Amino acid sequence: MLNAAIIGGSGYTGLELLRLLAQHPEVEVSFITSRQYKGLKVQDVFPALNGLYDIVFSDLSDVTSIPDVDVVFTALPHTKSMEIVPKLLEAGMKVIDLSADFRLKEAKTYEAYYGPHSATHLLREAVYGIPEIHRGEIKKARLVANPGCYAIASILGLAPLASKGLIGGGVIIDAKSGVSGAGRIPSIETAFVEINENLRPYKVAEHRHTPEIEQELNLLEGSKEVKVTLVPHLLPLSRGILATIYIPSIDLSEKELFEIFKGFYRGEGFVRILPSDCLPNLSYVRGSNFCDISVKIDGRCNRAIVIVAIDNLVKGASGNAIQNMNLLFGLSEKVGLLPPLYP
Amino acid sequence: MLNAAIIGGSGYTGLELLRLLAQHPEVEVSFITSRQYKGLKVQDVFPALNGLYDIVFSDLSDVTSIPDVDVVFTALPHTKSMEIVPKLLEAGMKVIDLSADFRLKEAKTYEAYYGPHSATHLLREAVYGIPEIHRGEIKKARLVANPGCYAIASILGLAPLASKGLIGGGVIIDAKSGVSGAGRIPSIETAFVEINENLRPYKVAEHRHTPEIEQELNLLEGSKEVKVTLVPHLLPLSRGILATIYIPSIDLSEKELFEIFKGFYRGEGFVRILPSDCLPNLSYVRGSNFCDISVKIDGRCNRAIVIVAIDNLVKGASGNAIQNMNLLFGLSEKVGLLPPLYP
Amino acid sequence: MLNAAIIGGSGYTGLELLRLLAQHPEVEVSFITSRQYKGLKVQDVFPALNGLYDIVFSDLSDVTSIPDVDVVFTALPHTKSMEIVPKLLEAGMKVIDLSADFRLKEAKTYEAYYGPHSATHLLREAVYGIPEIHRGEIKKARLVANPGCYAIASILGLAPLASKGLIGGGVIIDAKSGVSGAGRIPSIETAFVEINENLRPYKVAEHRHTPEIEQELNLLEGSKEVKVTLVPHLLPLSRGILATIYIPSIDLSEKELFEIFKGFYRGEGFVRILPSDCLPNLSYVRGSNFCDISVKIDGRCNRAIVIVAIDNLVKGASGNAIQNMNLLFGLSEKVGLLPPLYP
Amino acid sequence: MLNAAIIGGSGYTGLELLRLLAQHPEVEVSFITSRQYKGLKVQDVFPALNGLYDIVFSDLSDVTSIPDVDVVFTALPHTKSMEIVPKLLEAGMKVIDLSADFRLKEAKTYEAYYGPHSATHLLREAVYGIPEIHRGEIKKARLVANPGCYAIASILGLAPLASKGLIGGGVIIDAKSGVSGAGRIPSIETAFVEINENLRPYKVAEHRHTPEIEQELNLLEGSKEVKVTLVPHLLPLSRGILATIYIPSIDLSEKELFEIFKGFYRGEGFVRILPSDCLPNLSYVRGSNFCDISVKIDGRCNRAIVIVAIDNLVKGASGNAIQNMNLLFGLSEKVGLLPPLYP
Repeated sequence: MLNAAIIGGSGYTGLELLRLLAQHPEVEVSFITSRQYKGLKVQDVFPALNGLYDIVFSDLSDVTSIPDVDVVFTALPHTKSMEIVPKLLEAGMKVIDLSADFRLKEAKTYEAYYGPHSATHLLREAVYGIPEIHRGEIKKARLVANPGCYAIASILGLAPLASKGLIGGGVIIDAKSGVSGAGRIPSIETAFVEINENLRPYKVAEHRHTPEIEQELNLLEGSKEVKVTLVPHLLPLSRGILATIYIPSIDLSEKELFEIFKGFYRGEGFVRILPSDCLPNLSYVRGSNFCDISVKIDGRCNRAIVIVAIDNLVKGASGNAIQNMNLLFGLSEKVGLLPPLYP
Repeated sequence: MLNAAIIGGSGYTGLELLRLLAQHPEVEVSFITSRQYKGLKVQDVFPALNGLYDIVFSDLSDVTSIPDVDVVFTALPHTKSMEIVPKLLEAGMKVIDLSADFRLKEAKTYEAYYGPHSATHLLREAVYGIPEIHRGEIKKARLVANPGCYAIASILGLAPLASKGLIGGGVIIDAKSGVSGAGRIPSIETAFVEINENLRPYKVAEHRHTPEIEQELNLLEGSKEVKVTLVPHLLPLSRGILATIYIPSIDLSEKELFEIFKGFYRGEGFVRILPSDCLPNLSYVRGSNFCDISVKIDGRCNRAIVIVAIDNLVKGASGNAIQNMNLLFGLSEKVGLLPPLYP
Repeated sequence: MLNAAIIGGSGYTGLELLRLLAQHPEVEVSFITSRQYKGLKVQDVFPALNGLYDIVFSDLSDVTSIPDVDVVFTALPHTKSMEIVPKLLEAGMKVIDLSADFRLKEAKTYEAYYGPHSATHLLREAVYGIPEIHRGEIKKARLVANPGCYAIASILGLAPLASKGLIGGGVIIDAKSGVSGAGRIPSIETAFVEINENLRPYKVAEHRHTPEIEQELNLLEGSKEVKVTLVPHLLPLSRGILATIYIPSIDLSEKELFEIFKGFYRGEGFVRILPSDCLPNLSYVRGSNFCDISVKIDGRCNRAIVIVAIDNLVKGASGNAIQNMNLLFGLSEKVGLLPPLYP
Repeated sequence: MLNAAIIGGSGYTGLELLRLLAQHPEVEVSFITSRQYKGLKVQDVFPALNGLYDIVFSDLSDVTSIPDVDVVFTALPHTKSMEIVPKLLEAGMKVIDLSADFRLKEAKTYEAYYGPHSATHLLREAVYGIPEIHRGEIKKARLVANPGCYAIASILGLAPLASKGLIGGGVIIDAKSGVSGAGRIPSIETAFVEINENLRPYKVAEHRHTPEIEQELNLLEGSKEVKVTLVPHLLPLSRGILATIYIPSIDLSEKELFEIFKGFYRGEGFVRILPSDCLPNLSYVRGSNFCDISVKIDGRCNRAIVIVAIDNLVKGASGNAIQNMNLLFGLSEKVGLLPPLYP
């Protein structure tokens, strides 16, 4: 039995770790922190967890207050993670970080999007945590940087083409996300009455997951520079990201495109390349770690269309983090990850 | 053309007044206040109103800053209204108050639910603003106290029986409300992710609209003391209140019950007593000033069941306020009130 | 490893059995039928199940076509189940029936609500499948009649009081259900556009789960005749039943009431009696087999209010069926049942 | 007072005509047909309309059974309209057709998407009914072909650029629609449980509104051939279309782009070009005839992004049809069209 700690357990990604770890047969959550809920029982703050946990939120005054654990999930806001992660590593713990702090290899890229970085020495060491792409490195890592939700959907939808040198400029990612991706801090923008019966774009071509996507695709692509336009939209639903990706100048048949994707993800347990008569639905992945992908060719316009669906809290955050943990500790990669809640 | 002022225009009831008055042929909004949005254009704060208004939010420093208007709608939080309303009346304006401050006749009842009252001298004068019950008094009023949303639904559903002396103790009002009723100030309780796919009761048998309901029903009933149990629930939708009301010990056939309601509301333009094969739906009243009512007899248990549906922002607030304004100024009662948005 | 068959696997209860059994460590679904989808793969009909099943829907021409299985779940419409269940029992299988066909002990009660019954000889033998009430009998049963969704919520909310002789006439159950309870056959009434932003009552005081509730409560009550008024409402959400139950003439403090419930459900793994500052939310039980209960006293009206929340597809159908199966085969009662998907 | 007939009044576009015409001061609906509801009162079929109409659905046996009306709205399925429209025109009526039957100028384009056309002689005469583009022709028309919902959103979003010769191949329209666009006939695809908490693409690069869009843009563009990729998605909400449009190779600043749009729509009452710090929201247009547009430049990728929001039942269907009617009869273009229902 592994012992896990969660640093920053009061947001939706922390809560989702709790949901999934509640039934993970090989892991126990033995420590959890929250400044806001310090001293309160987890099950009193989140009554859904009644009967599943009996544990109290701690305040993280000092790293030495963390008991002896095998793995730490840091689910802190951006810029907060970089303060604590170096100390956790020094104390000998393995860390899976769900913030953006260790995803980008270049400090100046980080700084352009998030501000100053105080632990740049770890940027090269941190492994970008997409198992389907970096499995070998993840197994040996001390620090795994769990990807952004839009980023993992986009990268999984483009990696097979990038690895064949088939993309360059001109990639468009029209992404639609459920509201849990916006976090748990109340705001008028995420109030029920404002989201319900609404759809709205935001951060048009300016979203902070853009550099992650370009970093990973350029690694795969090798030759041409990959540039993407990412336009996110907020959906009136709680969970899920659907990305509709447009790639210009593709001279492939739909069958050939399908085979490239099938080949790239052969043997993967969580990426499902859908048959041609089936398209991704957010409800097919809700609550699960699956990433569903369909590929289409628009012959009239010589363009490939790739559609990707994930649950932003699972494959887009906490589920993928657990998949990374399973890899880190030599467990079966699928253990503790659950079937979709459909309907 | 009447000139209207809205004091407290940044909440959902103020916004709903703006929506309805935008197309009211006899009224123009010539002044609006908001502390939060002082100096901003209404259409910049609420882009939905672009092209319909070109007016700036003022701060209400002084009553004398209000231009010469015919009617003032006060859409302030409870306890704030009582500070300003006396001054407006002194300045000779007619006031329709959407807060709770002037709904209760007894200061001590008010104080038990809301705290100290600083303008108790107006409690007797204020007319409780349900046109279907107090039409004559409203026409002559200086100050109309627009009812609470749960209150108006409950009172309209029980008034025909109360007026016949058919209710006493034991009335249960199981009410379900959309989230706009909780106001526009962000909170974790009204965040999208918490409300979506959820239903929850709140203030069980403790809601502040209870004394309004009992006050009005006791006026109608005359002899026995009416007591009600009100249990509100929060629905995952934006607009609407559906109240399912249970009245014990009713020895009437469904036909007789139906005739009592038909008779009581004869000639009313906004109360629709539905035929026996039709039940209220929130979507049938959305955006409109209608109040739909069905009556049923549960013969097995000797009980009447009355089901009432309104839009909480319209008949439950701003639409009813406009109906009151129409009455105050001798306009056709229906003018400026709109058909339901269905679907 | 147990082998299970599902007869009638194309509806939402069949689908929910598939979801839960996909990760049940002790059971494998080895046979499934659907007239509509005969010959199609389960994962092609329900793409959410891709990667979790590789099995084809059969048509049920003949009971002998069912392979050797340990347990059969019949998820057929009412009146269809009674045709097949006797044959399954004769063939020596254990049956958990999710229809209404074997829930009522009295054939004439069944007939008043559903029509003629062709297997009345099994009505006495069938065990009404609420483990919290009939655990001992279920363990030894050949045929378990899984309760109706409104029924199990209502009975669990009233059983502690009934067992103390504290209820009689006058019980009101105001119930609100998600739409999955209406089944998977398309109709205008359950179309998205008609349900969305809507709430509507239906079958007011006429719902077919009423006799189940009265049957079970009268068994517990013993002396006085229990009669209930059940009014169901359709909510704009997929999963969940919240029942607000009103019981007159209760001379207990809230503390005493709470203790009665705590005592009655002591040791139960799925019934959670919430602390006094917490009320049931549908989102706290979604996807789980939990039944959350709060108790309140309305001192002004001398009335108890019990609020119950379940997921209608889990504790209200397939999850409870699996709990029954676990009991039947001596497994841990909780195995294969999952934490809530919150948010 | 104009008299209007509605042929095919049982779908959502017919219903929306009824909603809007209920309060149109210059029009009365004097005749309405529905095969399905023949003989029933409109207000019994649609209880939302109680108190607003007292009219019976007729069956359309014969055109001569239509009373003397000024205008006929045909809200029939595709291929049904072409059977009746020629007869209406022969009888001297003005027709506004909401089907696809008279939108395409080329019979062979129609046939490629919809099947054989039996009234091709009217294709040239019919005026494509976007007032902002064809106002002059509409005023003089006998037959107005009201555009498709995706088409009008897309065309209004691209017309300013097309009219300047700034678009060619490579335009991508990523469109998201509410479910009312799918019509009122029940299907599993549009059932609440399947749509709720879901988002799904459909008819990827194959939607039938594509040729309408290309026809109109090519008329405006003149030189280069315009080709578009249209990918529609189904949103979990009732009303609204948001189209995110990507145009490659645009060498303009955001300011220049904004001025082109402002200039093109100068004086238009229903097209709102939003200021740069505001993006379209479906809730800002719900229930109204507004079309909200934002323009953005993605400088990194040399690409324009235009975002368009309409209510698919209003500007995307019945509201635009009423705007056309107003034009046809010399009324103020805005009369009878309502403010958005926000929230």
